[in-house]
Parts: sequence; structure tokens; C-alpha cells
Amino acid sequence: MSDLTKPAVPFSALGRRAKAPTIARLMNAALENPALLSLAAGFTDSATLPLPAVTAAAQRLAVRGDRESLQYGPNQGRPRLRAMMAGHLQRREPALDAGLLSRQLFITNGSQQALYLAMQVLCEPGDIVLVDRPSYFVFLEMLTGMGVEAVSVPVDHDGRVDAAALADRLTALKQAGQSHRIKALYFVSYFSNPSSRSLTVTEKQTLARVLKEQDLIVPVIEDAAYRDLFFASPPEAPSILSLEEWGGFPRLYLSTLTKSFATGLKIGYGCCTDDAWLAAMLHTKGHHDFGSANHLQALLEEVLAGGSLEEQLQIIRPVYARKMQTLHETLVGAGLQKTGWRWTAPAGGLYLWLEAPALLDTGLESGFCRRCIAEGVLYVPGELCFGDDVPRNFVRLSYGVLAERELAEAGRRFVRVAQAAGN
Amino acid sequence: MSDLTKPAVPFSALGRRAKAPTIARLMNAALENPALLSLAAGFTDSATLPLPAVTAAAQRLAVRGDRESLQYGPNQGRPRLRAMMAGHLQRREPALDAGLLSRQLFITNGSQQALYLAMQVLCEPGDIVLVDRPSYFVFLEMLTGMGVEAVSVPVDHDGRVDAAALADRLTALKQAGQSHRIKALYFVSYFSNPSSRSLTVTEKQTLARVLKEQDLIVPVIEDAAYRDLFFASPPEAPSILSLEEWGGFPRLYLSTLTKSFATGLKIGYGCCTDDAWLAAMLHTKGHHDFGSANHLQALLEEVLAGGSLEEQLQIIRPVYARKMQTLHETLVGAGLQKTGWRWTAPAGGLYLWLEAPALLDTGLESGFCRRCIAEGVLYVPGELCFGDDVPRNFVRLSYGVLAERELAEAGRRFVRVAQAAGN
Repeated sequence: MSDLTKPAVPFSALGRRAKAPTIARLMNAALENPALLSLAAGFTDSATLPLPAVTAAAQRLAVRGDRESLQYGPNQGRPRLRAMMAGHLQRREPALDAGLLSRQLFITNGSQQALYLAMQVLCEPGDIVLVDRPSYFVFLEMLTGMGVEAVSVPVDHDGRVDAAALADRLTALKQAGQSHRIKALYFVSYFSNPSSRSLTVTEKQTLARVLKEQDLIVPVIEDAAYRDLFFASPPEAPSILSLEEWGGFPRLYLSTLTKSFATGLKIGYGCCTDDAWLAAMLHTKGHHDFGSANHLQALLEEVLAGGSLEEQLQIIRPVYARKMQTLHETLVGAGLQKTGWRWTAPAGGLYLWLEAPALLDTGLESGFCRRCIAEGVLYVPGELCFGDDVPRNFVRLSYGVLAERELAEAGRRFVRVAQAAGN
Repeated sequence: MSDLTKPAVPFSALGRRAKAPTIARLMNAALENPALLSLAAGFTDSATLPLPAVTAAAQRLAVRGDRESLQYGPNQGRPRLRAMMAGHLQRREPALDAGLLSRQLFITNGSQQALYLAMQVLCEPGDIVLVDRPSYFVFLEMLTGMGVEAVSVPVDHDGRVDAAALADRLTALKQAGQSHRIKALYFVSYFSNPSSRSLTVTEKQTLARVLKEQDLIVPVIEDAAYRDLFFASPPEAPSILSLEEWGGFPRLYLSTLTKSFATGLKIGYGCCTDDAWLAAMLHTKGHHDFGSANHLQALLEEVLAGGSLEEQLQIIRPVYARKMQTLHETLVGAGLQKTGWRWTAPAGGLYLWLEAPALLDTGLESGFCRRCIAEGVLYVPGELCFGDDVPRNFVRLSYGVLAERELAEAGRRFVRVAQAAGN
């Protein structure tokens, strides 16, 4: 049957705005071209992926004949897994009430789905979401897809929240009669994607204080996807769930077992302090899929009960620390700083965040980007990571997936292009 | 940290419309109250859930050290699984081109997500979707959540598509200047949820003909979730993918491995003939989750490669046939027909669809429904399954999950309430 006539499909506004997510394009480029060394996709280390732990979990389900793990489960997620994730969080922040947390917690298809649900029930096209600077580019693309405007929280020269500039920006929005469009604040708080920075306690307190001073008690979303991926010691700042300054705000804390355990299991979670917001997200999830795969949740319960998450974290932390060091030292050794590039070696996470000389365009369509691909190395253009006032001279390099030898080779290729561009 | 102030969350229109999906409430009622015998939730048979096959698949991944199954996969789904599902479909409809199908095919979190994506990219609040009568109630609730109006395809006394009445209805919409609001046609074509009827070839041809006569070349969605669940022989009608009459329409064919293999794996798929429509859905899926869990897809590849899907179907078909017969005969034996109820024993699927006497209200809020719960039996009120012109005297009974003895007991409880209501 061939389509002899091709009538145009009558898209919704969302359908018309739908553009290929960059993450999908970059992931496909990496999946389809094994010769290219990809410092772009946020894949995790392959050699340490916990196949034995997952196999053992599957075996335990088999041994006790747990057929129920192959049946539908509840929309909000399995109660035992929710309690386990609440316990995991409570161990990081002892002041929290694990019982309350597990009632506020819901299981999603990666933390990405929780983000999507949060935005769907809050935002209309034309609304504003305040975002960190830089911010998670898949989230920024999602906002674009929803017709929502991202407005950055201003930062100082060191990338720290600039309270005075934020107050000025919010005042300007108020004076322009635009405050009502602000529907939420979003930030990645620990070893951020892309900057690998963690917000300090003071920065988090400052954000709450400035919003309160502006009478903007809007929903706040803390994305803690990388919280467990520290190299030496856990990040010090508590989350918005236990910081007193955030007490009056509707809060959604997000995290995931993908980055810290296995991306292929695609299980994340949200923890929401506001009953009505939580209910609206769950109802919408009921329409998306009425519950994330019960089998994956049952597997992860076994993984957590057997202590395999902590074991896996013990395994991968030094691996990522070494990989970061390898890429960092390759860039330093090959002389990237001498051509005017700047960056800080991070204390956790999966990314190096590089600032190129101010006039060097590293964007998706730039000659620099094309030359990197020709040289056999892929990166994420930093321009994707800004909600507004977009600089073109940043680059995100992921060291998660490549082996150390490949990281070194990819780093050298990158520096060759940078040096050629600097001459 | 207590929330001393409770500011209202500023919901979007979708957030304000979000209501607890009935499916979630019914599933929770079943999960939370083991004493109640549930003929409501569309769970599958628990005793035959394929734990050995899934365990064997996990073992095969382990033996060959397939760590990549725990890594992120592509947004559209794993190419091998897509090719396998295309092959599965092509074996049912030999005229189809499996290569083309696998390019048009995308993997989702159950077929539910494919439905959601399809509606998101097509419909705005205020639009119309044409639906079968009765129709899948979770789909109808999704439409309500999106602010979309469901308009039923009229059927005759036997529940068959009524071409003349459909033409009249579409003409009336055109004369009222409302045709432009019609964005899609949706129907469950094989052993429908809830009616267990399959559309005949003639009905499918008629639908296409009437739409064409009305110049309504709108996207059409065929939901084939229950296609493999026949008792004795496969349903005869080909899908919209190979029926010539549908050639000129943008088409989306949906199916799933949940009902036919394991609901707990939550993997479904769509196959879309229109490139732009497919692209818009995939881009939106990139924002939802950028790919369904890679591990589940890898497991299912092993399941399919090992022939376990066909084995499982051979196991469950007679089980469902027997279960249907048990419930059917219990209702007959206890005298339900004598109190004026009518139904037809189905040839596949998971449901009995009962018509009560015209004046008996079986709705969610009815005394009949409350008495059934008091008697210890749960059902899906048929009123949920109609897009418009809603009758109150239908009931959906699922025979999928309960054991035969429980089905008999639940059936007797149900008939007791029906007989009391009839006196």
C-alpha cells in the first residue's frame, strides 16, 4: 500500500514546535558512528555497568518465584522501592522524615519524566521558568517544546548566584507586569549538568530569600541526578527538602538510579511536598503510562536490599575520578590553557565545562564544531545550556563513557582543533 | 520543616483538568484490598506470567556479558527489537514490507505512551477525536485530561459500525462548521477493550469510505493491543496498514508486549506511516524520557529470539479461553440472563461486556456499584467506556487475573446483586 496522496497531518501547537531533541541526535551520532570519539553524550561508564548485580537480582526474583514482578504495579510506584529511596535520601539528610518522604515519592521513567510531568501541570505556552545558568539542555529544549520561556538566574564571574542581579531581574519583570508568568524555579544542585558545580548552602538560601522578598512563592524543582556521583566526599549542602528557608515553597526534589546505578534501567523518582501538585503529576502519569515498569522496580528493590547500589557507587566513584583526571590532564598537558581556555577540575559528576576565548564560536553550526567532527571528536556546544543571553564560547565534555585511552585521544584531538582555531 | 504557609500551586489548564484516572483507582483498590474479588482491573493471568522465560533471557544477557543492555539506548527503540516486532506483524499480514515497518516502528512505555504522544502532537483543547462505541476508557479519560472531545462512531443494534448514521453525524458537524475540529479517528480493532468485539473487514472498509466521502482524511489510530489474544483462531481482518481503503490516510498502528507477554515489562510499540507525524511523536518522546528502558528491550529481544513469545501465547490462550468460559457459565448458571442481562461470549481478549436491563444504573456512583463492593466484587462501570450519549446500563468484567475458582465466586456475587436489583 503506497501513500498516493500525502495529506498534511493537522498538528497541535506542541506538535508543530516538536524539534529533534539534541540529546537524541548526539546519542544517535555516537551509537551510529563508532569511529567518532564522543565526549558529547552523557552515557555512563560501560565497563563497570552492574550486570552481575542485575543478574543476581533477577535470580532472586526467580528463586522465590516472584511472578508478581511481571504484573502491572501501582501508578505511583512500588511502595517498597519508594520506602527504600526515601531511606536513601534520609541517610543523606537525617532531619527528614522517611515515612513522609515515601508518601511524597513517586517512581518515573528516569527523572526526565518527573521533570516533564512537573512542567506539564504547571506551565502554559508563554509562561516563564527561572533556570540556573548554565542549565540542563534537555530541560531547556523541553521548555522550548512547550512554548515556555527560560529566564536565567544571574551569576557572578565565578558562576555563583548573584543575589542583587537576580533581585534586579525579578523587579524588572514585576515592573513590566510579567511576574505572573513565572511558574517555577529549576536548578541542578549537585555536580551540575553541564557545569559540574554544586550550589552552596548560602546560594540555596539566597535563592529562597530573594524569591520571598519578591513575593514569588513559586514551585521550586531541585534536580539532584548527580548527587551520589562525588569523587571524595558527599556535597555538603542539604536539599530544598530540609533547608528551612524553602519551607514555605511547593517543592519537588528529583533524583534517579540511572546515573548512579544503570542508565538502561531508566528508573528515577520525584519527591513532592505539595499534595495538589503531586496529585496532578500522578494523574497525568496515569495518562502517560499508568506506572513505570513494575519489573524494573522489583529488580531495583533486590539491588538495594542486597546492598548493590552502595557497592556500585564504591566502584564507579574512583573510576569517574580517574577518568576526569585523565581528560583534565590531557587537556592541560596538550596546552589547551595556553590558548586561552579556562575550566576547573570538578569534585564529582560526569562533565568538564570549558570556557573558550570570548570570540571563539563553538556552537552547533560553527566551523569549530565541524572541525572537531572532522577530527573525530564530538562535544556538546555550551550554547545549548543557556536559557537566555546565550554565549557561544562554552563546551561540555563528558568523560563518562569512553575508556581512559580513548579519553586521552579524544582530548588530544580536541586540543588540536582548539590550537588551530587559536592561530 | 513544616509548610507553615500553603501557597496554591499555579496549575496549567492541563494541571487543573488532571483527575485521578479511574484505572489507577481501580488498580489501587485491587492492590490494597485482597479480600475484594476484582473483575475490574485489566490485569493478566498471574499463574502463567513468564518468569522462567524472563529469567532465561536475563541469564543469556549475563552469559554473554552484555553490559550494553544496562546503558542508554536510542530514543526510537533498539533496532533489533523494532525489526523483530515488524517481523511479528508481517507474519500476520504477509503483504506488509517488514523493512519499511521497522523504520516506521517505535518502542514505547506500553502502547499507552504511544497513544499519549499521538494525541499530544495532534490535539488542542476543544478539538474532537472520533472514537469507537464503546471505547477504551483510559483513552477517553486521557482525552478529557487534554480538554479534547470524544465523538462516537454510531453503531447499530448489534454493535456494528452504522455507515449511514456516521455519515449523518459527520455531515451535521460539517454543517455546524465543526469539521475542522476533528483531528483523528481512534478504535480498538481486535477483541476490543471493553466489548471484546473485533471489527470486520467490511466495517474497517466502511469507516475509510465514509471518512473519504466526507473529505476527512484525518490521522487514524488502530489500537491492536489484544490482537494476539484469540482463543481458537486469529481474527481475520487485516489492519489499517494493509487495507487498501486506508492507503491515503496518515496511520498509526499500536500494539504491545504487555498483554501478550508480561504487563510488568511495560513495553509497547507504534508503527506510523506518516514521516512528519512519526518525527513529532519521537521528538516529544525525547522530552518525555529519551527512550524506553534499554534493558527491558534487550530482555525482550532474547525472549523473542528464543521463541518464548509464541510459547507464552500457546500457554495463555487456552487459559483465557477457560477463564472466560468459567465466568460466562457461572453467570448463565446463576441465572443472570433471566433477570434481563445480555452478553455474547467472546472469541478472544480479556473481557465480558454485559448489558443490563435498560433502567438499571450500574455507574460509578450507583447503588448497584456500591452493593457490588459491599458484596465483595468489583467491576468497571460501562459508563466510563462511552465518549458521548452515555448509557448507564453496561458493565465490563475482566477474567484475566482471578483464578477460576475466584472467577466463579465473583460471578456468583455479581449475580446475587443483579438479582436483588431486579426484584
